[in-house]
Amino acid sequence: MAQLAEFDLIHHYFSRPTANVTLGVGDDAALLSPSPGTTLAATNDTLVAGVHFFPATEPFALGWKTLAVNLSDLAAMGAMPRWTLLSLTLPEIDEAWLAAFAAGFYACAEKFSVSLVGGDTTRGPLAFSVTALGEIPAGYGLCRHTAKTGDDVWVSGYPGFAALALQEIEGKITLPDSLRALCQKRLHMPEPRVDLGLALIHLAHAAIDISDGLLNDLAHIARRSALEVKVFRHCLPRLPDGVAREMALTALLAGGDDYELLFTAPPEHRTELAKLAAKLDLPLRRIGEMALPEPDRKPAVRLVDADGKEITWVQGGYEHFIS
Amino acid sequence: MAQLAEFDLIHHYFSRPTANVTLGVGDDAALLSPSPGTTLAATNDTLVAGVHFFPATEPFALGWKTLAVNLSDLAAMGAMPRWTLLSLTLPEIDEAWLAAFAAGFYACAEKFSVSLVGGDTTRGPLAFSVTALGEIPAGYGLCRHTAKTGDDVWVSGYPGFAALALQEIEGKITLPDSLRALCQKRLHMPEPRVDLGLALIHLAHAAIDISDGLLNDLAHIARRSALEVKVFRHCLPRLPDGVAREMALTALLAGGDDYELLFTAPPEHRTELAKLAAKLDLPLRRIGEMALPEPDRKPAVRLVDADGKEITWVQGGYEHFIS
Repeated sequence: MAQLAEFDLIHHYFSRPTANVTLGVGDDAALLSPSPGTTLAATNDTLVAGVHFFPATEPFALGWKTLAVNLSDLAAMGAMPRWTLLSLTLPEIDEAWLAAFAAGFYACAEKFSVSLVGGDTTRGPLAFSVTALGEIPAGYGLCRHTAKTGDDVWVSGYPGFAALALQEIEGKITLPDSLRALCQKRLHMPEPRVDLGLALIHLAHAAIDISDGLLNDLAHIARRSALEVKVFRHCLPRLPDGVAREMALTALLAGGDDYELLFTAPPEHRTELAKLAAKLDLPLRRIGEMALPEPDRKPAVRLVDADGKEITWVQGGYEHFIS
Repeated sequence: MAQLAEFDLIHHYFSRPTANVTLGVGDDAALLSPSPGTTLAATNDTLVAGVHFFPATEPFALGWKTLAVNLSDLAAMGAMPRWTLLSLTLPEIDEAWLAAFAAGFYACAEKFSVSLVGGDTTRGPLAFSVTALGEIPAGYGLCRHTAKTGDDVWVSGYPGFAALALQEIEGKITLPDSLRALCQKRLHMPEPRVDLGLALIHLAHAAIDISDGLLNDLAHIARRSALEVKVFRHCLPRLPDGVAREMALTALLAGGDDYELLFTAPPEHRTELAKLAAKLDLPLRRIGEMALPEPDRKPAVRLVDADGKEITWVQGGYEHFIS
């Protein structure tokens, strides 16, 4: 791929007008003017073909998801997304594919008012690396290490649905028709919980987005906050009908790629959080609580039944309840 | 690669203490506090094995260069580098390799006071994607579109030396012993011209770093500034002894990977720039001037002799003098 062809490509597909930018795509670096009194949140995520997505995935959805997973990280900090840089590595130039990818990327960017301000295009094995930058009022920000004893543990939306769609693509299950579209949307075009994150900076103590599975991601909060997380089995979202119970439970507890938010908040905010769920039209479910670890135990996530008795749940030979 | 193994890796090799950071590696996003009154400069560059470097390249040098090429982009804007995010895609985990890569990356980061604040590690074909963030006093910044008629055109350092080292690696030439070490250093561990960029925000009108070759990169300034660049053949750096003249000229004019700065400055700053060269112990050479394009010509780069007569120079069948 000639150098000039590369630049043409970037200009053609990735040079829409930008807001809130002093200088956008096309120079050595973009120039951005952060709002006074804000802290900058910065994250990046790389998606590699064959690892994070099937190479044949529809490019509009890929473009959307490439940005969405990064905005999910910003949402988990409570940040307002502002700017993004996209690095595309492509084995060849397929203009129809690129146009659809760009359309999906911009659909997500425009929905969340994010400006694409830089990046590059390289020949190589198909991969996308995105950096997303957001703003948080100085002194705020939802970290992993700031959960408090007695906090409720909450989860948004539809954890497990993306994993069920993946199971069907891999031929392991057949989803009921009533569930298929929702699961596929959650897998291919996840909705970063940006508005939820923005509201939570005033209500929550700690947050993380679910990319590696609900229990795995809760374990990060447990370890970083040096607390135990009790997850109440009877408070988990109802498992969907038409899917084997064990399969559905595994998807819920250990399925990755959810991009829902897990957060902890003091019990006095329960009413406020119920109002927020109604306002955002997004389920917010209280599934557990933060507690001091018993003296002989490390910070960990424990699944307990209604009587407080621990349930051992081992999936695929992998012990999830390790701190 | 298990998820926990990934996190351990990041923590083990890429979690040195950070300065000027509210929250570093290990959460959903880093939290950074830009200095009041500054504009943020943001750039990213991806290096893919087999495209940008030989997979067998010594990992310390690769780590250095991965960051250095991004700092070079910041230098070309006149920015003070502050923060970086690193996304590593690795086919397998080789701890000795990773330790050396991290040592090289941090050697560059520490030399230029940059904090590594985030990133991720992914299994896949060997590639590195870096985002670098820097700060510029609000209202400054060296763009490509801001060159003025009558400006001198300057180049720093040793353009062409990296390309000569590459030619030797590819078996096309044998460098004289006196030149080999310098050329190899320029190729494998380029020095981003950070101090030069910082000084130039008060002296230069436009700047770019040389990654695609001196003439190609000057063409960006020409096109974006809607001006013609005249490059004086007799003002170019002396070609090194012991290398065929045509080969050396090609490396100088079209060799990429230089990471020197090209900049334009008004003639009244010549004395100041000579002083700066002495202070930085870095050659700064005046090689041309910016002019209005003749009415029937597009903005372009033209190589001219001492009498102002245009020299046609075509390399490898590729016309370099296209706007």
